[in-house]
Amino acid sequence: MRIARFSIDGNVAFGAVEGDSPDELVLDIIKGIPFAEFELSGTKVPLSKVRLLPPVLPSKVVAFGRNYAEHAAELGHEVPDAPFAFFKPSTSVIGSGDDIAYPSFSQELHHEAELAVVIGRLCREVPRERVKDVILGYTCANDVTARDVQKREKQWARAKGFDTACPLGPWVETDLDPHDLAIQCTVNGEQRQLGRTSQMIHSIEDLIVNITEAMTLLPGDVILTGTPAGVGPLNVGDEVAVTIQGIGTLANKVIKRG
Amino acid sequence: MRIARFSIDGNVAFGAVEGDSPDELVLDIIKGIPFAEFELSGTKVPLSKVRLLPPVLPSKVVAFGRNYAEHAAELGHEVPDAPFAFFKPSTSVIGSGDDIAYPSFSQELHHEAELAVVIGRLCREVPRERVKDVILGYTCANDVTARDVQKREKQWARAKGFDTACPLGPWVETDLDPHDLAIQCTVNGEQRQLGRTSQMIHSIEDLIVNITEAMTLLPGDVILTGTPAGVGPLNVGDEVAVTIQGIGTLANKVIKRG
Repeated sequence: MRIARFSIDGNVAFGAVEGDSPDELVLDIIKGIPFAEFELSGTKVPLSKVRLLPPVLPSKVVAFGRNYAEHAAELGHEVPDAPFAFFKPSTSVIGSGDDIAYPSFSQELHHEAELAVVIGRLCREVPRERVKDVILGYTCANDVTARDVQKREKQWARAKGFDTACPLGPWVETDLDPHDLAIQCTVNGEQRQLGRTSQMIHSIEDLIVNITEAMTLLPGDVILTGTPAGVGPLNVGDEVAVTIQGIGTLANKVIKRG
Repeated sequence: MRIARFSIDGNVAFGAVEGDSPDELVLDIIKGIPFAEFELSGTKVPLSKVRLLPPVLPSKVVAFGRNYAEHAAELGHEVPDAPFAFFKPSTSVIGSGDDIAYPSFSQELHHEAELAVVIGRLCREVPRERVKDVILGYTCANDVTARDVQKREKQWARAKGFDTACPLGPWVETDLDPHDLAIQCTVNGEQRQLGRTSQMIHSIEDLIVNITEAMTLLPGDVILTGTPAGVGPLNVGDEVAVTIQGIGTLANKVIKRG
């Protein structure tokens, strides 16, 4: 099931996305929330009539660095032995169709297309064999990065945590084997990144064991699993799109911060 | 005013702390919340009859590194030209009297006593002269750190973001000039850290200008302003206390993670 979060007439709701043709998608409004028991209401609205919101409102986004060898190499880094994580705050999250605001303190904004894992239940110290039980589904993410600031500042709160730095969407796909999916990033329709999730150094299972050894994850928290090679600049006016096989496309425009 | 958050008979409330003698403190229960219009109810309960909670529930804690020169030196680091920030997640926050759970993946836990700034209103791009308007008040913090993990992992999400790594409390003091306060940390009654907030390299104003240039702060968000020299080990069974002049004492015991 593809679960979208959207606003219509000032109300926020979840809906199951039905249909295949991008222009003819319909939302079947969900009664309840996807993190608990819920059912489809049968009340349907065309996707074109609503505003998509970020598919979840995470209390935290935990992102892993350098999880694809070719990307580590392109930035001149060695591949780390163990995963390492950083946070993107809830205030950085936007949905598909929202604008990325170019930060005033950077001159080098980069896209980083990533598979995002959406956590479905409160969990800590998750054993490897139970990882699948704590996952609600998967969505697309763009770990937008002020690369110049990232180089200057030892910790990445500003470089990767500024407002609009975490596009997520368009929806959460709950029925998907995430282990060998194509991830693509285009800018103005031109391909910039292309990789497969099978190229991850540390698997989704590794990452969730690693982070929940330290901290509790809450329903709606999001894990970013690293970006494949090909990261590059974003400029004001660019249209950036992250497409993941079996999920869909997360599209955002870069604007000047107002 | 000292504003505490507490639970009594299963309910959560805010209260104004009255009295001077630690054994005779009384809470005047607040009608409303401290981030908006509120008044004192006149209904009073002894502090000894309630459980103190973290004084706020931050959506994010933004912590600044190496903001006291002697502390940077004791860890063998240079003083950075510009501030740099990292996040501690909401799931790491505990209150005074709560236990710090020694993480399973560290053998070197350290205390870091810090002045915490509590944000009172939604804000971004705050000009220096308006910083005072966005601050609700001040509390004590312990930026508990798995020092060995911090050295191993390039970003500090696990080293400083594990569950219980962010004790805050005992309450928020709203009437205080924060610019020259004594900060002390004791372990089992023995002094380990002693500094003054006047030794900060980057002022509170600098820090809030710096972070809000990048991101929106929400009511209840917390800024940690760095730790003075004297950081050192915490062991299971230790009682660690952070005392800041004009605020009070944040006390926590270190236990084995259960």
